[in-house]
Amino acid sequence: MKTIEPKILKGTRDFLPLDMIKRNIAMDKIKSIFDRCGYNAISTPIICPAETILGKYGDEGERLTYSFEDNGGRHIALPYDLTVPLARFVASNWSELPMPFKRYQIQRVWRAEKPQKGRLREFYQCDIDIVGSKSLICEAEIARVIIEVFKSLDVKDFKIKVNSRRLINAVLDMFNVPQKKHIDVIRSVDKLEKIGEQAVEKEIEALEVKDADKMLALLKPAESNKETLEKLEQYDTEEIKTFLKYSNELSVSEKYLQFDPSLARGLDYYTGIIYEVVSKQADFGTICAGGRYDDLCSLFGAKDLSGVGVSFGFERIMILLEEMGIFKNTRLNSQVLVTLFDENSTDDALNIYSDLLDKGINSEIYFEPAKLAKQLKYADKKKIQFVVISGSQERESNTITIKTMESGKQKTIPRKQLTSYLSGFEKK
Amino acid sequence: MKTIEPKILKGTRDFLPLDMIKRNIAMDKIKSIFDRCGYNAISTPIICPAETILGKYGDEGERLTYSFEDNGGRHIALPYDLTVPLARFVASNWSELPMPFKRYQIQRVWRAEKPQKGRLREFYQCDIDIVGSKSLICEAEIARVIIEVFKSLDVKDFKIKVNSRRLINAVLDMFNVPQKKHIDVIRSVDKLEKIGEQAVEKEIEALEVKDADKMLALLKPAESNKETLEKLEQYDTEEIKTFLKYSNELSVSEKYLQFDPSLARGLDYYTGIIYEVVSKQADFGTICAGGRYDDLCSLFGAKDLSGVGVSFGFERIMILLEEMGIFKNTRLNSQVLVTLFDENSTDDALNIYSDLLDKGINSEIYFEPAKLAKQLKYADKKKIQFVVISGSQERESNTITIKTMESGKQKTIPRKQLTSYLSGFEKK
Repeated sequence: MKTIEPKILKGTRDFLPLDMIKRNIAMDKIKSIFDRCGYNAISTPIICPAETILGKYGDEGERLTYSFEDNGGRHIALPYDLTVPLARFVASNWSELPMPFKRYQIQRVWRAEKPQKGRLREFYQCDIDIVGSKSLICEAEIARVIIEVFKSLDVKDFKIKVNSRRLINAVLDMFNVPQKKHIDVIRSVDKLEKIGEQAVEKEIEALEVKDADKMLALLKPAESNKETLEKLEQYDTEEIKTFLKYSNELSVSEKYLQFDPSLARGLDYYTGIIYEVVSKQADFGTICAGGRYDDLCSLFGAKDLSGVGVSFGFERIMILLEEMGIFKNTRLNSQVLVTLFDENSTDDALNIYSDLLDKGINSEIYFEPAKLAKQLKYADKKKIQFVVISGSQERESNTITIKTMESGKQKTIPRKQLTSYLSGFEKK
Repeated sequence: MKTIEPKILKGTRDFLPLDMIKRNIAMDKIKSIFDRCGYNAISTPIICPAETILGKYGDEGERLTYSFEDNGGRHIALPYDLTVPLARFVASNWSELPMPFKRYQIQRVWRAEKPQKGRLREFYQCDIDIVGSKSLICEAEIARVIIEVFKSLDVKDFKIKVNSRRLINAVLDMFNVPQKKHIDVIRSVDKLEKIGEQAVEKEIEALEVKDADKMLALLKPAESNKETLEKLEQYDTEEIKTFLKYSNELSVSEKYLQFDPSLARGLDYYTGIIYEVVSKQADFGTICAGGRYDDLCSLFGAKDLSGVGVSFGFERIMILLEEMGIFKNTRLNSQVLVTLFDENSTDDALNIYSDLLDKGINSEIYFEPAKLAKQLKYADKKKIQFVVISGSQERESNTITIKTMESGKQKTIPRKQLTSYLSGFEKK
């Protein structure tokens, strides 16, 4: 028989047991915050009619979308993000959804680009959105959700930068940047942290904007949100003021929330408040970002639905948590291994295993008679806490020996005390 | 702007919030049984090199596999089941996996077939497998896992039919069925429940098998497993006997486990014990099935790894649970809606919402000032239990009114008692 190389595509990943446990720990914490704040999980198909995926991103997005023709001649695409599928979902299920509709969605998306560090072809996105309300309470709520999510993950040293697209456009108008150059200037300002003030100034000057230095000075955040607002008092800052006030009422501390007029976010579909979350603990940029985008669903024929939402960078968050050492004691789920030495002891071992399962203790049995050393090696590889040994001596005396793997200590106790003894230990 | 029809492909599904909650309830129960018995979750890529997916199924499988060429000219396929990806996964990650390796995997798979009732193009499979042991303890453990899974889901009226592929082949040999016709006869016997004894007899006779009636009589299960074994005493029933003995030691009741020599399972890759689970509560056939297959990974160059596993029919199980009424009281997660009446009350409403979140109470705030009736309609659509009202009267007297949606009753209490009052209610 010809053998096939057991390979996977570059930019895709296998998740091993310990990966999955770590990912689920983080995901469960994130989900429980979403649940607490009234967001509902949904799921959308992976194979989609191409036109329902391609409509929104422009040429660049189209090039990066995984699309193909299936055997039935249908033009199929895989989701490029979770925002366009949300727009399609809302338009499809309109009559069944409560409005405003608050959803979260954690699903894989695909990018047909050359994989490199931190850029995968297949990866998870984790989005929350509120569809169907223009109230700035939505924006404030999302700030609160972001804070609760990172706190629940033990990430403390983070900051939500916020700005208003309306405000930045007003500043550009005042500096006589023509409308058609707004997006180029915004994309330049967006690079402030990356390439520094001087480089950005040069880029903007190259766009024939006068007083680029003054503009950048104005856009630079001051020490406090209040001072930043004062710097911009000649502009209409009503939106950002109301947002900050609502956030404050929702106990969102300024410690976490920074009004940064230079925050731009490259994407051109944002229309109101925009967010970007960075952490000093993570040296790889944004760990969560998003904003308000009007007319989300008009592409699919549903009019006048404004949306606001953020996407948590789940893969980056996992790297951050790993670097923080959050998972250093994370182990697989089995707490007890029941050993097996010979055919004569098989029935006894099966009974012990059955008793442990009956009591809800996460357990395993070694499937084949083997030397203790081999079985201990298995327990060690799976980081199982206790190994239960019932040899001929134990069986005669109606006792059982429990070996604690971490300390290596053994203890022999009466057989019938086994499950209550082991139930007494907290699962580490 | 051109609008796009918000459609999805036939045979794919949107999962709405209530669908997701129900599915997660069932999935969490199933996962907790897998965890208890030492199975570890893994996940494998969705876009795969076609040859790693297509190798195993033969022409029929190849025709039904979603495959395509991507923009980079790579031949890609989407998983057809979770067994071939498991084989590839084990061969790829060999050195990092404990052996025997016990995994579970709950993921979408794709079939390029015409969608019809109960046949989707994109659906979830839920598999457990043990790779790397030939011990019949594995088979017994899997019987126990199946029983625990269905009990945890409150499905009580079910039966695991088991048989041995070796035994059925021995019977066919004894009735002089030539080796090359075994699979055809097995496929016929497999249809016993579907088309009845007489029709199967005719089919087998058409294959030029003599004494088809006697053969079928021999294969028919007796009243008890013991009697069935007695009927077949002239054959080598050691495998099934040992399996039944081990199962018994694992407290697997005969009430749930029926030795059925006529059980065949159409697939030709099974080599040992096979399983099929049916429930009288479900009139649509098998809700779980599988068996032992030798040489699982040899296709990918890993030799001599025997595997045994079953696949739970998650979509069918969901239909069964729905029919049983398991979900009749299932609701979305929010317990409390904080109402909003006018700009003046916004700060107060935000403070109330913030307090509720601080106390971990699943809550929402209505985002825009609206009439009470509209807000109650929203609460009703999301089946929220309590609506909190803080009008001008309440604010003056430092009280708060709580409306219980189910009864319609209202109660006014001191403002500061709110969170402790609501914490006292179990989430329904």
